[in-house]
Amino acid sequence: MKKLLDDPAQAVTDSLRGFAQAHADEVTLHEDPTFVVRASGTPPGQVAVISGGGSGHEPLHAGFVGAGMLDAAVPGAVFTSPTADQVAAAIVAADGGAGVLAVVKNYTGDVLNFETGIELAQAEGVEVSSVVVNDDVAVEDSLYTAGRRGVAGTLAVEKIAGAAAARGDDLATVTALAERVVSRVRSMGVALSACTVPHVGRPSFDLADDEVEVGIGIHGEPGRHRVQASGALDITRRLVEPVVEDLDLAAGEKVLLFVNGMGGTPSSELYVVYARARDLLVERGVEVTRSLVGSYVTSLEMQGASVTVLRLDEELTALWDAPVRTTALRW
Amino acid sequence: MKKLLDDPAQAVTDSLRGFAQAHADEVTLHEDPTFVVRASGTPPGQVAVISGGGSGHEPLHAGFVGAGMLDAAVPGAVFTSPTADQVAAAIVAADGGAGVLAVVKNYTGDVLNFETGIELAQAEGVEVSSVVVNDDVAVEDSLYTAGRRGVAGTLAVEKIAGAAAARGDDLATVTALAERVVSRVRSMGVALSACTVPHVGRPSFDLADDEVEVGIGIHGEPGRHRVQASGALDITRRLVEPVVEDLDLAAGEKVLLFVNGMGGTPSSELYVVYARARDLLVERGVEVTRSLVGSYVTSLEMQGASVTVLRLDEELTALWDAPVRTTALRW
Repeated sequence: MKKLLDDPAQAVTDSLRGFAQAHADEVTLHEDPTFVVRASGTPPGQVAVISGGGSGHEPLHAGFVGAGMLDAAVPGAVFTSPTADQVAAAIVAADGGAGVLAVVKNYTGDVLNFETGIELAQAEGVEVSSVVVNDDVAVEDSLYTAGRRGVAGTLAVEKIAGAAAARGDDLATVTALAERVVSRVRSMGVALSACTVPHVGRPSFDLADDEVEVGIGIHGEPGRHRVQASGALDITRRLVEPVVEDLDLAAGEKVLLFVNGMGGTPSSELYVVYARARDLLVERGVEVTRSLVGSYVTSLEMQGASVTVLRLDEELTALWDAPVRTTALRW
Repeated sequence: MKKLLDDPAQAVTDSLRGFAQAHADEVTLHEDPTFVVRASGTPPGQVAVISGGGSGHEPLHAGFVGAGMLDAAVPGAVFTSPTADQVAAAIVAADGGAGVLAVVKNYTGDVLNFETGIELAQAEGVEVSSVVVNDDVAVEDSLYTAGRRGVAGTLAVEKIAGAAAARGDDLATVTALAERVVSRVRSMGVALSACTVPHVGRPSFDLADDEVEVGIGIHGEPGRHRVQASGALDITRRLVEPVVEDLDLAAGEKVLLFVNGMGGTPSSELYVVYARARDLLVERGVEVTRSLVGSYVTSLEMQGASVTVLRLDEELTALWDAPVRTTALRW
């Protein structure tokens, strides 16, 4: 294993410290328990939006802390849920007096620890709601989940909930909007290579030189099937079709198309996947009115990509377009 | 070779088309000859700043087209200079009536083709100046250069020249500021893996499982030496020390510290390198007042990183801080 790390057991802490130093004007790192908040805090009277989960998916979630998106992020160990104590501390720290929405990816550990953390924070008097993101159409259950996994669609939930909070919506409204995104966003991914968890030291799976894993999760867990490596068009079709079918997209509908890199794939390839995915949607009469391309929800250094489609409406489009000022996403 | 591409010979064009589609509000792609300009054009009366070079280093340069940075970018084939015709066409298209600065990385092909392209544009009546960036301290001459190579420091030259143009400086002033950045910026990189040029189909070099290449260029060309893979601190020291020595940095000086990923390295590792590099500078009494961390000047999917240090002064700091609205860099 070659990585730009020192002690593997300290990798998450080392990385978070560097992140907080590089962006000291924007974020503050708390340690023991570990969480990241906006340097300026949640604006008083504004609903706070928080998220978290295992590390190894950077910039998700800490890179999305900032105005118009998340007020706090709770990183666990690599591919491991944060503890309930971390979650509770982040909720209490992020509360601006108007309550807190927790965005949780659907993994068994995350769901359990967020539930307990939320109860602990509620016991301290904070109003808390939560949504569970389960956008991955690849598998119904997995090693890590009952039901579908939460993957790159989480970014859209966080962006839109954060925009709703920033415009002054109350907790019930922010929560309902987040639920609306969850019900309208779907994803599917492909891996060209595995990733190596630092404290494990070996790749999470083996993939032959001529194979790709379709339906991969963001933890190196198995996908739907392995196929012969082929071109971008063929692979992209294997991602777009299940997403479109699951969403039951009809001609004339407007969507956000988000092509996400898994960490080790250069943006030049992501733009080829974007072009292919866009063509496949346009062929079906679907209108791509918003786009995002980049490595935002990753699996360490895994090579691969995922395609996320969000069925838009006027309000979701306006909230997607609203200003966002985080270290990883800003407009 | 597994990549998310179709015909390798069309990879650059396919990717540029996806890029232009995804960012149609911000950039416009011209084909035959190929170059990218701001969708809104150069503001009339403003100096235009352009750059270009071989593809495979994305988001450099096309990702930096936008307000406050580049007015045009000229992509060649992968790791191959654009042609003089491309350069000339981009200069003519970008000219807003106040002249054009061309930022050229120091590679023999780029220098020659930009020279010819500039002459062609001048023959059409455009006032053009140029600067050559040579920030890589690793080697004095290389396979591709007479003199030092231009690498990640190019980003700082483009950002600061673009900011000077945006505030209304004339061509001579913008050019002098770009030269000032060139004289004060130094870089050095390391590779943990090679990259594979699509139309070649095999890795650009072999590196044993326990080796890293220190002083790597951005084309997979050889560096200074191979060493046993070690931790982030040891590797980062091998990058920071030559940079600091070449700049002759003294205690009390203020710098921009830019940790750049080579394409296949996740941001979590880059932040560890950033933390180590920052500590090494602080140990010497150097003050890190500005920071940038991310994969901005890449070598396809190569794993590795580079460290760039820019000696700041008040004016360069203000120009670095000035607003920038490009697809890859915005604040």
